[in-house]
Amino acid sequence: MANPTPVATIEKYARAWNEPDEALRRGLLDDAWSERGRYTDPAADVVGRDALVRHIVGFQQRFPGTRIELASGIDSHHHAVRFAWRMIGPDGAVTVEGMDFGELGADGRLERIVGFFGPFPALAKD
Amino acid sequence: MANPTPVATIEKYARAWNEPDEALRRGLLDDAWSERGRYTDPAADVVGRDALVRHIVGFQQRFPGTRIELASGIDSHHHAVRFAWRMIGPDGAVTVEGMDFGELGADGRLERIVGFFGPFPALAKD
Repeated sequence: MANPTPVATIEKYARAWNEPDEALRRGLLDDAWSERGRYTDPAADVVGRDALVRHIVGFQQRFPGTRIELASGIDSHHHAVRFAWRMIGPDGAVTVEGMDFGELGADGRLERIVGFFGPFPALAKD
Repeated sequence: MANPTPVATIEKYARAWNEPDEALRRGLLDDAWSERGRYTDPAADVVGRDALVRHIVGFQQRFPGTRIELASGIDSHHHAVRFAWRMIGPDGAVTVEGMDFGELGADGRLERIVGFFGPFPALAKD
């Protein structure tokens, strides 16, 4: 069977962050996330699919009613991906914007995501 | 000796792209780039420091008089970095803008850079 496209994989990955049902979330990550994949953002560093399934529960509990949605298309080359995203609070306002960079394994699953919050920092002036 | 900061490492790495003298360029990459580091952009996939030293020559020969400069500050967490850059043609006009994501090894050298050209793609509308 052909690998899923990077777009299909990232869409499943993003859905996992919003899926409250653990079995469904695990199913999404079974498809989209490598068993040993590593997720890192400024506040977290999580190794393995099981750990990510649990990490997302923690996120959902800390920010009830918050959703994550893609804020750009998904760009990819050489099994690497980039996309922008935003976090939407229960009142519909954007609470955090950020960008993720990732790498896909030979089977098309994510082996690595590194997330950054906010825009690029300003260029330091001499 | 303490590791160099991510900022110092990225500044040396960026200087290497503009350094026409091979010995000086190699010296910059000795400090900033892991011996087995992998550089990937939409048009290239280069493994190892020696290969990157040579790849940059090719870039300089294809685009004579072109320089690369940082277009943002350098953001980092957990040994990961992001920054924006721009390519400046001989007439001073910006020819390409892009962004790089990278990972630093335990010794502070870059083990991975993945570059992307242009801004994030637009979000596909349903």
